[in-house]
Amino acid sequence: MNRRVFNFTAGPSMLPLPVLRRAQEEWLDFAGLGASVIEISHFTPEFKAVVYDVEALLRELLAIPPNYRIALAHGGGAMGFSMVALNLIATRPARKALYVNSGYFSGRAAAEASKYGTVVEVASSEGSNFDRIPELDAARLDADASYLHITTNNTMVGTRWHSFPDTGGVPLVGDATSELLSRPMDVSRFGVLYAGAQKNMGTSGLSVTLVREDLLGRALPITPKMINYDQLARDHSLSNTTNTFAVYMARGVLEWIKTSGGLAAIEAQNERKAALVYEALDRHAGFYKPHAHPGHRSRMNFTFKTPTEALDDAFVNEGNAEGLYALRGHRMFGGIRASLYNGMPIEGARALAGFIDEFARRHG
Amino acid sequence: MNRRVFNFTAGPSMLPLPVLRRAQEEWLDFAGLGASVIEISHFTPEFKAVVYDVEALLRELLAIPPNYRIALAHGGGAMGFSMVALNLIATRPARKALYVNSGYFSGRAAAEASKYGTVVEVASSEGSNFDRIPELDAARLDADASYLHITTNNTMVGTRWHSFPDTGGVPLVGDATSELLSRPMDVSRFGVLYAGAQKNMGTSGLSVTLVREDLLGRALPITPKMINYDQLARDHSLSNTTNTFAVYMARGVLEWIKTSGGLAAIEAQNERKAALVYEALDRHAGFYKPHAHPGHRSRMNFTFKTPTEALDDAFVNEGNAEGLYALRGHRMFGGIRASLYNGMPIEGARALAGFIDEFARRHG
Repeated sequence: MNRRVFNFTAGPSMLPLPVLRRAQEEWLDFAGLGASVIEISHFTPEFKAVVYDVEALLRELLAIPPNYRIALAHGGGAMGFSMVALNLIATRPARKALYVNSGYFSGRAAAEASKYGTVVEVASSEGSNFDRIPELDAARLDADASYLHITTNNTMVGTRWHSFPDTGGVPLVGDATSELLSRPMDVSRFGVLYAGAQKNMGTSGLSVTLVREDLLGRALPITPKMINYDQLARDHSLSNTTNTFAVYMARGVLEWIKTSGGLAAIEAQNERKAALVYEALDRHAGFYKPHAHPGHRSRMNFTFKTPTEALDDAFVNEGNAEGLYALRGHRMFGGIRASLYNGMPIEGARALAGFIDEFARRHG
Repeated sequence: MNRRVFNFTAGPSMLPLPVLRRAQEEWLDFAGLGASVIEISHFTPEFKAVVYDVEALLRELLAIPPNYRIALAHGGGAMGFSMVALNLIATRPARKALYVNSGYFSGRAAAEASKYGTVVEVASSEGSNFDRIPELDAARLDADASYLHITTNNTMVGTRWHSFPDTGGVPLVGDATSELLSRPMDVSRFGVLYAGAQKNMGTSGLSVTLVREDLLGRALPITPKMINYDQLARDHSLSNTTNTFAVYMARGVLEWIKTSGGLAAIEAQNERKAALVYEALDRHAGFYKPHAHPGHRSRMNFTFKTPTEALDDAFVNEGNAEGLYALRGHRMFGGIRASLYNGMPIEGARALAGFIDEFARRHG
């Protein structure tokens, strides 16, 4: 029963085993209450302590500046798309928002925002099938815009921003769903930084938003109360019954990151894992075709193809038979995708790298 | 470690022990995958089977007519308040909605709707501190209204609608957050019936909505995609990463209801539990003062006071010492509140009834 696969799914994704085990152990008796953590009110002192721990750990691990507030909301990144626009687009009279299109989710974020104002696509790498982060022309940074939105890591295509753009007076908004907590990030570069929890912060149905205080309080009046940043920040995210289980799991994951040495140590580990995989792919450059331009490679999502679709299928199926689970690429892009979030141990990266070598030798 | 209290919290609330135990047992290896249920994609065949099971079990247990669709959404009842208005208020040109005010959450539902159209309070029991369901004057049923909203069970004050109003051509919308799945309900009486999951359907961060097909497809254009009934219904609620854990727990609870004999059997059990508690309160009519008018009593939430606030406190504290957990009334109404959802075994109702007797004898 304790067989664990190396699970390369794009998310909800593999979690650290000690965090899962602790949840299992205290499942029927949380904090000595004689009840499960999912059976108690969000307003109990015991549960509030969990929320406050999550806030404090986020602040510590991400070195969040004091003028940023934290909002935990229902839903994941997709609810975040609506939240960004509803809360921010009216901060300037033009109700205009700039979007960089670096992949599928960038487009979905822009589509949601277009319900509430004018959306301008200021850069796109769609022409090269999102194989890179597009160049951003500073001349496109319209000072009337309420914000500029980027997707810091693109889950589906496997690219990321290695340095963030200087947007002058236009607040930068980052969707970091698939990489928040995988590396230190300079929060002060962003007006808003947000992420769904189901990659590196636990389980699904929850998002975290870090928002600079001066951007609060100017949401559109039509904003539903449950996705109003200001309301959530003032209520310590307890504006209604929060996703208590996801908040509890987030605390476990954040504590695990802290005891693992914090985000610098986590990043070093992720770099080691990424090097194993990319070096294996590059060793067989005639066989594997990585999707992302080398200078834009994600450290979380690794996308590549073999010479044929039949071999892509064989890679996925043979990998699965060897305990390398969920390697199939997204149906929109095909090929192979391996996601190695924080919860993937280095042994999983080694196993994948070994399989990449072996498969190329057998079929190359 | 397996000490279990009788947990009378208003929610998230006590769950059936077999459901909790099964989750614990298969926690690290769901469906033989070698991964936890919270570590797999919502698009895997194994997880889709969970979603389809939830839909099928809801249809079977609630005898949902074929012209109703099911939407599982992020958030609980409070997100539901926004969803109702965003999805329904524009179904008629007047953009008018009628609300019955039978307690705190009714008011919150109306406040959310007022962001999107004209809200008319057509009945209220606020004058008697919500001790009953107010009379609804048929003359107030404005045929221009898009819907009439009621709260079928009022968690905070402990009342419920024992029969539902005939609203003619105006669709009836019911917030059944604190009673859905506690008794059979005639879904065909409603245009929309919705509930948060954290009382009788598992854990928090998820709501279920049953919506009549002819009401779909006319949401306001500003409706966020993630809370659009039509979108969710078409996508089998997988419009983004759903709250996978809550959906999984819902399946466990629904299966438990089915093997317990379905909703008729569940209702009979809830009536037995309610009789134990109300009869105990009524035996000491000079000591306990139940809040709800006898003809309007909830079968889920039991609200009452002793002669003094000090005795209310003593009741809560002495009860807690005896393993009767979370009996304090909501801070807005004071006194004592015991919630006995489906997960409360009959032994818990007996223990509470016994304590009600004993406390009155000691302090009466």
